[in-house]
Amino acid sequence: MKVVVTGARGFLGARVADFLLGPNCPFPVTELVLTGSGLPAKRDDPRVRLVAVDLSVPEAAEKLITEDTDVIFHMAAVVSGHAEAEFEYGMKVNFESTRALLEAARQRVPKIKFVYTSAVAVFGGNLPPIVDDLTAVMPQNSYGTAKAMSELLVNDYSRRGFVDGRILRVPTISVRPGAPNRAMTSFASGIIREPLNGVPAICPVPPEQELWLSSPSTVVKNIVHAAVLPTGLLGPWRCVTLPGICISVGEMVDALRAVAGDKVADLVRFKKDETISRVVATFPSKFDKERALQLGFTVDTNFGDFIEEYIRHDLQPRK
Amino acid sequence: MKVVVTGARGFLGARVADFLLGPNCPFPVTELVLTGSGLPAKRDDPRVRLVAVDLSVPEAAEKLITEDTDVIFHMAAVVSGHAEAEFEYGMKVNFESTRALLEAARQRVPKIKFVYTSAVAVFGGNLPPIVDDLTAVMPQNSYGTAKAMSELLVNDYSRRGFVDGRILRVPTISVRPGAPNRAMTSFASGIIREPLNGVPAICPVPPEQELWLSSPSTVVKNIVHAAVLPTGLLGPWRCVTLPGICISVGEMVDALRAVAGDKVADLVRFKKDETISRVVATFPSKFDKERALQLGFTVDTNFGDFIEEYIRHDLQPRK
Repeated sequence: MKVVVTGARGFLGARVADFLLGPNCPFPVTELVLTGSGLPAKRDDPRVRLVAVDLSVPEAAEKLITEDTDVIFHMAAVVSGHAEAEFEYGMKVNFESTRALLEAARQRVPKIKFVYTSAVAVFGGNLPPIVDDLTAVMPQNSYGTAKAMSELLVNDYSRRGFVDGRILRVPTISVRPGAPNRAMTSFASGIIREPLNGVPAICPVPPEQELWLSSPSTVVKNIVHAAVLPTGLLGPWRCVTLPGICISVGEMVDALRAVAGDKVADLVRFKKDETISRVVATFPSKFDKERALQLGFTVDTNFGDFIEEYIRHDLQPRK
Repeated sequence: MKVVVTGARGFLGARVADFLLGPNCPFPVTELVLTGSGLPAKRDDPRVRLVAVDLSVPEAAEKLITEDTDVIFHMAAVVSGHAEAEFEYGMKVNFESTRALLEAARQRVPKIKFVYTSAVAVFGGNLPPIVDDLTAVMPQNSYGTAKAMSELLVNDYSRRGFVDGRILRVPTISVRPGAPNRAMTSFASGIIREPLNGVPAICPVPPEQELWLSSPSTVVKNIVHAAVLPTGLLGPWRCVTLPGICISVGEMVDALRAVAGDKVADLVRFKKDETISRVVATFPSKFDKERALQLGFTVDTNFGDFIEEYIRHDLQPRK
């Protein structure tokens, strides 16, 4: 099968690409087109083709989707803080690129499996104590707005048979490796990653703030699973919130203390950032996992494992 | 105040225009720009300016919204059956024109009151027995999809202070005068209007199909009310489903019989159309009216009044 991954320079897109090339991929990949704004990292595999495209340009979608494309994982995104600061750019990448890709798919290969990664940031406003796939989205940030608009479009294109879409609302991911990004929830990785690297970290939200978290390995497995999910199981609405765990930021630091000791955990300092705290407080943190689990998605169990995954997979030996 | 009405050639837009010029308008209108695809009907009032624009062309929005515009009622739409048949045209008018108007407003007059008429067709899929403003929208038609996308955008533009938006989900309206249109719910007027004019009518949905209905006069009053609603009352989500009555098609015919007699009511014949029945069955028919009534919107009481309004206001003497 020929597979396209957008956003493959990003952390999550790169991990999905690696998984697709590895032994645990549930379908045979014969060609893998990796694309990003700039060339994604090279891979020593003859199936891989790297393409640099600017997805905010209309012609980009037509370059990427060809008649023989079987699956696209559309993961390119401008993250929440960035989209809030640059409204027009955010809309271009987070909404218009989705629309252009859908349109290219419709024209060329309507049977394509179109896996779209949305986010729990679509939720906001007045929320029930536990959110499920039938909860209204009332995004309180432009990132969530563009994602919610894209969801509607993927769903309508699917209903009409223009593509075969699957929409995943991805939890906040922890622990992301590398540098902080402009996501409002960047701290959810930073408060673990920085201390493990001996660097102090500032937590911009109060310790009691709860988050809906998934580890990178679980999210990656779930994203790829979406491509093999039988269409009929999704019913009239193709959005699924991926399962996660609900944990407070204070509990995350406690888990860090248990895994790595006081000296590491004491590097976290709480200093409230009003904007981040306000926006993150609008993200729900408790979801009903039932439907996702029935659809075969998997879930993490405890946050200590998240930390150990980072140490095992990403932590560089200290110099 | 300078007011713009899009879709003013349409039945509802024309009625809103008349109301704005009449003695019951709750604010003083000094200039009224009426626009449609083709010139709206002339009015003998020096405040009125007629403008023909094609809202599917990007420049149209810039023509309509000028620095001195206070309120826009954006009511232009391609109706549900038409949008289902012509996907691209529907998206252009129902989504892109909204986006272009929002963008023109943002650039020129961010304090503008932007009244957007959405529809209960945004709802579909798995629905609770009673729908409220916190129920998820899962549109099962492209008209509802474009309306739901527009809602998200109006809400985000409002949250960011780019416009001052108010979004109304309009019930099915009965009795519309004139010819049938391509709305899936066109029959909801046709089964009353045609018999009153001595013409047989075919009802394409089963008698037990329920609808959420409002009379033209009540909808018009409610749309204009939206412009004077204090922004703060709307909270983080500016969508309100307008109040209506829940009634089955069979009961509508019974009411026609009570008002106009057997000879008229017997002109209605039930003949199921599979497509229309399927789509209309996805529209919810029971809503929680509480929030709308608290916000000062008004509601009809019984369907007999709808019929009498049509007879009084629209029925031409038989030749």
